[in-house]
Amino acid sequence: MEETLDFARRVHAGKPQLPLALRLIRNTGVRKRHLVQPVEKTLRHPGLEERNRVYEAESKKLCPPVVEQALRNAELGPRDIDAIVYVSCTGFLMPSLTAWLINAMGFRSDTRQIPIAQLGCAAGGSAINRAHDFLTAYPEGNVLIVSCELCSLCYQPTDDDVGSLLSDGLFGDAVAAAVVRGKGGTGVTLERNASHLIPHTEDWISYAVRDTGFHFQLDRRVPGTMEPLAPVLRGLAADHGWDIRNLDFYVVHAGGPRILDDLSRFLDVDRKMFRHSWATLTEYGNIASAVVLDALLRLFDEDTPMPGATGVIAGFGPGITAEMAVGRWGQGTALAAE
Amino acid sequence: MEETLDFARRVHAGKPQLPLALRLIRNTGVRKRHLVQPVEKTLRHPGLEERNRVYEAESKKLCPPVVEQALRNAELGPRDIDAIVYVSCTGFLMPSLTAWLINAMGFRSDTRQIPIAQLGCAAGGSAINRAHDFLTAYPEGNVLIVSCELCSLCYQPTDDDVGSLLSDGLFGDAVAAAVVRGKGGTGVTLERNASHLIPHTEDWISYAVRDTGFHFQLDRRVPGTMEPLAPVLRGLAADHGWDIRNLDFYVVHAGGPRILDDLSRFLDVDRKMFRHSWATLTEYGNIASAVVLDALLRLFDEDTPMPGATGVIAGFGPGITAEMAVGRWGQGTALAAE
Repeated sequence: MEETLDFARRVHAGKPQLPLALRLIRNTGVRKRHLVQPVEKTLRHPGLEERNRVYEAESKKLCPPVVEQALRNAELGPRDIDAIVYVSCTGFLMPSLTAWLINAMGFRSDTRQIPIAQLGCAAGGSAINRAHDFLTAYPEGNVLIVSCELCSLCYQPTDDDVGSLLSDGLFGDAVAAAVVRGKGGTGVTLERNASHLIPHTEDWISYAVRDTGFHFQLDRRVPGTMEPLAPVLRGLAADHGWDIRNLDFYVVHAGGPRILDDLSRFLDVDRKMFRHSWATLTEYGNIASAVVLDALLRLFDEDTPMPGATGVIAGFGPGITAEMAVGRWGQGTALAAE
Repeated sequence: MEETLDFARRVHAGKPQLPLALRLIRNTGVRKRHLVQPVEKTLRHPGLEERNRVYEAESKKLCPPVVEQALRNAELGPRDIDAIVYVSCTGFLMPSLTAWLINAMGFRSDTRQIPIAQLGCAAGGSAINRAHDFLTAYPEGNVLIVSCELCSLCYQPTDDDVGSLLSDGLFGDAVAAAVVRGKGGTGVTLERNASHLIPHTEDWISYAVRDTGFHFQLDRRVPGTMEPLAPVLRGLAADHGWDIRNLDFYVVHAGGPRILDDLSRFLDVDRKMFRHSWATLTEYGNIASAVVLDALLRLFDEDTPMPGATGVIAGFGPGITAEMAVGRWGQGTALAAE
């Protein structure tokens, strides 16, 4: 946090939007972030080609150990996996990293590849939901989810509006993986999922694609989106016969502090119920689609709920899209995270 | 074809690889292609930002009427659709065009968005297979598939290796859409699907991501890939109790003439059984993920098979990945194309 504020003060000295940006960055509560390159290197833009080359090299270095750990946690091997959902909006490879992972890590040749690049921060929730759907179709199967978000490779030195300065202080780099088992294991038994697009908000969170790559554009109305989404989450729980106020765990996207505060308020749920998401935000920053997987891992590690405990998982991102799921802690169908 | 050969002769005059490229282009059998911009404009590279701006404008103009026609063919309205699979590897939007389509065309707010950008030409088959899986999970649902491939927006004037010159003469622009209904309708009842990655061929078809955008890279070994894939297709049919040689229809990706010729040879299937794919290639060129949908439309339009007729659908693309399905012409679960 201190480093980020220092850099912002130095790089944007004298700009009228600086004081507001500093205040917003301070309010993010992000104490620590991980970056794949040293800060000085992160701040230089070597061109889209070199950026994407770093993305490829780092993703190939960082993903395998995380995937291995997720497989170990799920007590499965690569050959037990029937589909890989790979989500990442911070680099672009074709073929997707799924092809490389299959070849490099011994997954079967008939593994389904489901690469999703355009759902941004909502893609973590989407990956869980698509895995759930896939296993509803193939109950004997297993799905691996990999989220690789190297947000620092989308830093754009020339973007200095308040939204960009705030983003520069908010996003971090992370790789996360999870296994959703059709049968067996321990974790969240996914029971119902849903997607919701807030009408006519397509340009609130978006990429401008330029010669310098992806430029993240954040509208000032985004922090207010939990007000329209809270009733949608409440409705999803109600469709399942549950009261959103009384669930045992809440694994939600930590887009920023306002998102979590507002969810508390509009769902009428105690702030500390979002402690896993707060911890992710504080210790990693907004790590895009990886947030829900990291928050889920904290639920596994710090606070294993009782069998039958009820909960919700929700990712939010461009569209504005919410990808939501409800389920129960169980010993059947399971989502194991790393 | 004649125009393309003229342009190649003029733009690459005197280059040693030109005669081979001209011969390969002549052999593609592509008689006509559609481009979203006039040829002179297509050949100029105005930068990635402008290219992507054209992609966004053209996709918003071209997709809605095609989607409307597919919905009409399926006798459904936008509010009957539960998921949209949007496949395109020739432009990048975040949020994906799915968000815009939902807002602009009256799809429900809870429509699932499944945008896939990184499966290239295999994405048409993948979209059909993901729709099939989704409807296996939700048998009462309906899925809309949209393929928007504006390949000419990835033309790179500075790439002049033989593979690039061949691609310049092969790829065309197209938009296609299909509806997969869970119940009702007429078309292909999807019964089984599979994916296959040919080991260690990740770099045979790929994009190099540069400051000028996506640079398509085609290895000279790609045309030979039907030899290893034919046994996979044969195996899929056999798993279903069918003989790949005796199906009633074959809807396959027309990557180029060699792909179709080799499939004929290695599957021991008469060349004319691939007439729909040949027609797509001749009249549109290789239109990436849209090929299988266009070939399927030709099956609907020209040659409606009898109820119970057996068939295969297969897309091939980077990975090297094959996305394959087998099914029967029926009046139940149906795939309607436009």
